[in-house]
Amino acid sequence: MNNTFTRAAAAAALSIAALATPALAQEPNPPIAGEIGYIFNTFMFLVMGFLVMFMACGFAMLEAGLVRSKNVTMQLTKNMALFGFAAVLYYLVGYNLMYPGDGWTITNYLGAFSLTSLDPVGLADTEPDLSYASVGSDFFFQLMFCAATASIVSGALAERIKLWPFLIFTAVLTGLIYPIQASWKWGGGWLNEMGFLDFAGSTVVHSVGGWAALAGALILGARLGKYKDGRVTPMPGSNLTLATLGTFILWLGWFGFNGGSQLYMNSAGNVADISRIFGNTNIAAAGGSIAALILTQVLYKKVDLTMVLNGALAGLVSITAEPLTPSLGAALLIGAVGGAIVVFAVPFLDKMKIDDVVGAIPVHLFAGIWGTIAVVFTNGDASLSVQLISIVTVGVFVFAVSSAVWLILKATMGIRVSPEDEVNGLDMTELGMEAYPEFGKGSQIG
Amino acid sequence: MNNTFTRAAAAAALSIAALATPALAQEPNPPIAGEIGYIFNTFMFLVMGFLVMFMACGFAMLEAGLVRSKNVTMQLTKNMALFGFAAVLYYLVGYNLMYPGDGWTITNYLGAFSLTSLDPVGLADTEPDLSYASVGSDFFFQLMFCAATASIVSGALAERIKLWPFLIFTAVLTGLIYPIQASWKWGGGWLNEMGFLDFAGSTVVHSVGGWAALAGALILGARLGKYKDGRVTPMPGSNLTLATLGTFILWLGWFGFNGGSQLYMNSAGNVADISRIFGNTNIAAAGGSIAALILTQVLYKKVDLTMVLNGALAGLVSITAEPLTPSLGAALLIGAVGGAIVVFAVPFLDKMKIDDVVGAIPVHLFAGIWGTIAVVFTNGDASLSVQLISIVTVGVFVFAVSSAVWLILKATMGIRVSPEDEVNGLDMTELGMEAYPEFGKGSQIG
Amino acid sequence: MNNTFTRAAAAAALSIAALATPALAQEPNPPIAGEIGYIFNTFMFLVMGFLVMFMACGFAMLEAGLVRSKNVTMQLTKNMALFGFAAVLYYLVGYNLMYPGDGWTITNYLGAFSLTSLDPVGLADTEPDLSYASVGSDFFFQLMFCAATASIVSGALAERIKLWPFLIFTAVLTGLIYPIQASWKWGGGWLNEMGFLDFAGSTVVHSVGGWAALAGALILGARLGKYKDGRVTPMPGSNLTLATLGTFILWLGWFGFNGGSQLYMNSAGNVADISRIFGNTNIAAAGGSIAALILTQVLYKKVDLTMVLNGALAGLVSITAEPLTPSLGAALLIGAVGGAIVVFAVPFLDKMKIDDVVGAIPVHLFAGIWGTIAVVFTNGDASLSVQLISIVTVGVFVFAVSSAVWLILKATMGIRVSPEDEVNGLDMTELGMEAYPEFGKGSQIG
Repeated sequence: MNNTFTRAAAAAALSIAALATPALAQEPNPPIAGEIGYIFNTFMFLVMGFLVMFMACGFAMLEAGLVRSKNVTMQLTKNMALFGFAAVLYYLVGYNLMYPGDGWTITNYLGAFSLTSLDPVGLADTEPDLSYASVGSDFFFQLMFCAATASIVSGALAERIKLWPFLIFTAVLTGLIYPIQASWKWGGGWLNEMGFLDFAGSTVVHSVGGWAALAGALILGARLGKYKDGRVTPMPGSNLTLATLGTFILWLGWFGFNGGSQLYMNSAGNVADISRIFGNTNIAAAGGSIAALILTQVLYKKVDLTMVLNGALAGLVSITAEPLTPSLGAALLIGAVGGAIVVFAVPFLDKMKIDDVVGAIPVHLFAGIWGTIAVVFTNGDASLSVQLISIVTVGVFVFAVSSAVWLILKATMGIRVSPEDEVNGLDMTELGMEAYPEFGKGSQIG
Repeated sequence: MNNTFTRAAAAAALSIAALATPALAQEPNPPIAGEIGYIFNTFMFLVMGFLVMFMACGFAMLEAGLVRSKNVTMQLTKNMALFGFAAVLYYLVGYNLMYPGDGWTITNYLGAFSLTSLDPVGLADTEPDLSYASVGSDFFFQLMFCAATASIVSGALAERIKLWPFLIFTAVLTGLIYPIQASWKWGGGWLNEMGFLDFAGSTVVHSVGGWAALAGALILGARLGKYKDGRVTPMPGSNLTLATLGTFILWLGWFGFNGGSQLYMNSAGNVADISRIFGNTNIAAAGGSIAALILTQVLYKKVDLTMVLNGALAGLVSITAEPLTPSLGAALLIGAVGGAIVVFAVPFLDKMKIDDVVGAIPVHLFAGIWGTIAVVFTNGDASLSVQLISIVTVGVFVFAVSSAVWLILKATMGIRVSPEDEVNGLDMTELGMEAYPEFGKGSQIG
Repeated sequence: MNNTFTRAAAAAALSIAALATPALAQEPNPPIAGEIGYIFNTFMFLVMGFLVMFMACGFAMLEAGLVRSKNVTMQLTKNMALFGFAAVLYYLVGYNLMYPGDGWTITNYLGAFSLTSLDPVGLADTEPDLSYASVGSDFFFQLMFCAATASIVSGALAERIKLWPFLIFTAVLTGLIYPIQASWKWGGGWLNEMGFLDFAGSTVVHSVGGWAALAGALILGARLGKYKDGRVTPMPGSNLTLATLGTFILWLGWFGFNGGSQLYMNSAGNVADISRIFGNTNIAAAGGSIAALILTQVLYKKVDLTMVLNGALAGLVSITAEPLTPSLGAALLIGAVGGAIVVFAVPFLDKMKIDDVVGAIPVHLFAGIWGTIAVVFTNGDASLSVQLISIVTVGVFVFAVSSAVWLILKATMGIRVSPEDEVNGLDMTELGMEAYPEFGKGSQIG
């Protein structure tokens, strides 16, 4: 099976520019042929890819800031380890599994279980497809999306999950769950053929992380004392500066996330499209943050910084399914709705007694669904029914498989620390290491 | 009005390379024509633009580190919100207002009040000016400069200003004040025609932020207890690691700030110039930090880290007006003078009882003026009188309009929190949320 | 002496692609000639260079997180100052000293003591070598490697060294020690001619920093109370979130460090190679972190986050000598061995009573040696004996000269603070400024 060919074909199938090429006999700005176009595409993936890689740091800082100090070392350990696990599993299984080739048969899928091989050094003895990009750059870029999916999960389950079951789940998620459903769309599979549109992954990445987190949060249960006597006990994050730092880093990384999903930078049209995407991505985040700012002021008479941060992230998730076609004004509105969703969804989840420590489910799942639906407002090729079918299909698959994995882990090795350990904090009990050993405790410890 | 044309023309008017093109009939390294040059220019704006975007994070960290912990959540909220406000206002008004077209009449300015429109998807049905860059990339890059201007203000007014008046001022600054004065230079306006040289904005960005901050600081007044009984009470920042992080991020972002201001990367000469700018920008920051290091050692017998940080930033501001023509040695000296200015200006402002919490006025206004003047030492095209006239004109305009806005805000909704709230900290009183709720307070609280 | 020519020649001598050019008469993907190739190479250096620049921030955060809070301001000051010193010294001496030209005589070395000059503005009146990159971009990129070397030293010597002797050592390291030994390999000198392979500097950068740190640690002695009554007293770092932040930033920067060392991006083969390097660099870091994760779990029954962080860094150092030729699987293994080395080397150093505060010697020296040796497993051109000779030669030179400098500094101005000052912390005693003045002290202060 020629995976490289498959990937380039899948990329071509996704690319408006490439699709348009044969249609326009006298296209005014045709793709640059040969090596120069290949260098543009490949270098674009590398630059956008390192931005997305940095999102792993953003998630780590966001989550470290939003958990209580007694669980910070654990949260950092999880974030560092999941990124390593994603890198290895995606190399071992995930990358090739995302591109099982034509036919989409079980045989193809089984055949796709193989290690990733990059282009040979110096492209020696190969004839690379110069109309796309190097395998290494595509692998690097795609890996970072897979890792981001895993990062989403860790925040929701913070402060009570054990380290190793979490990492085993991460391995399943990054090696199997993510790549299989991603193949349906980005591998050129049946959702793609049905006409599902998800430019950079409101569904394929963000809702997938959200569904996996939701399954975990339900099976794991809420933190001790969070919902007691019908009341919600606030458990404020230990460091809002770090949470803000994480949000800014994620915002930065999102330019790579959405911009790189254009897949090509080998024509004036493609680079202008990436520019549109940068502008739209930025203003959607602005819309989300301002919506949360205004709504919390109106509803609670006080601006809530954590809502503003999550509002910005929800704006980013919302625009991710279609960052190209909206005007700046439409992108602003799409992001603002995402921010509003967060403001209402966070207390709603608390009402449902679903304990999502950092707000990952509102941000990535709810805003991800909204963003996937919103494609129909700005992209004439989108079908609402196809978008809904795709959202539901991916959701059912990921939620079911994730639940099964969580239940198996719960039944075998256990997924939750003991109540004593939870009260004392995971850092000292599980890891024996405090994040801030010198700073005396104040009176507000949750 | 064809704003796209105007922008490209304004850019061409600013670009040495473009200016040189017609003059050299047999130029050895002419700009790359067609799509390839367009891709180079556009991608350069995107990369440099995301670096400048990250400066918003740098400002947030710097300011969060330099305020006391009781005001950190507020400072973070302001920084996150101002970046959103800048994105929206620059889209609604600012961008087109910066390029009002030829003639510079009131009619033109009024006609420039319009939403920003980006290039159509895939550049369909357009004939882009391939000698420049996509509108989206230009918008993205320019927006980040506007946002940086607003970031400068927030630090100086920290620890006593209310949230909403600050955000309303930010809207006026990013929607009107910044773009109008920027049009005089970068929109090809009268300062530009007079021969004013300000490569990346020592005056157009940094002094503008500084003047707006100075007006605010004067009208707002000093923090309670800062200047009491003829003594200056030190109010040390709560977290110097975050302040250092912010400084390093700003230093990184400045490569985009100055490098991207070359505007073109479509020839060997242009990319070599961007390289010169990177080298000069870096060594000017080094010069500023070392000057502050040595001066505080000599003057106070102890190195002062906050001065070293602000010295580095002042070095960066100083080189911003002309990062291209200096030699590395000249850039080092220009930056070192900037660092020295900070060491003397910070106590000078305290003597004047002007309370600038983070040192924004010495760094951005004083070093910005110095940098604008210093252009005459390395660029033969610069006229000292034109530089001085421009500094004064921009200063009078921004200071007057800013003062008017601050005074209106003071007279209507009030701009300052109550003395009780200021003592208790803005985080609990205005926002009801502490940045570090778990960390017990020590004995040194200012 | 035409240094520019020498540098391009040295770069060509190092570049597989360039070497291959004359050999393949009908090369399928030849380098892009003329300005376009020059722009690709130059812009690549600038992008990779700003990533490496950001590593200075990563080191600062890592070290600030791993020292006790009473020494944080000092550690930040050192990191900020050393970066400035490196910028100035490399400009004054280092850069030209790295490229002393053919012959390698004393005369050549003496002649190489000269200020760095960049290309003229707009490349006016020059005929640049369009097959390479601008001098400014090369200088910027190379400078960041020199600065990284200095950053390595600061962590090992933390918590007891005085500021100024450290900075004087930094000046000697960045102005003389680093460039002289780097000239042997990267300046096209005798180690290079012998066939020494060190793609991005496991030896030339990392082991050099490690040797200089080892010499300093031995001469400086351990922290008070660290090794007492035959026991090792743990002195836990004050902020593991910052240490994690620093590690992520270093991981990000390493893509520039290794990727940019390809030196060329002007052909499909070169950009595909950079992609390989990105993939290998990432998976080596993953391997190092996972190895440390598993090993600490097995050995100590608890995962140790600081080991995981240093494991990731050791994985990165290990792959640095040859990030191109390994397959992903080989890179994973090479990195994993690096991570394992750290787990065993940290207690080994403690047993030897060598007090390395942040683990710089295991990470940069031991893993650097391992990485240099590991080249022979994946690169057929490597000779084990040449690699070993080079490791030893560089080690002897750097260790001997560094020791001499440290001893002279010790004998003249003294390098260590007084015992009282060390107990009270360098921040208050040396700088008079706490990093976290408001946070009350807990009970675990070391």
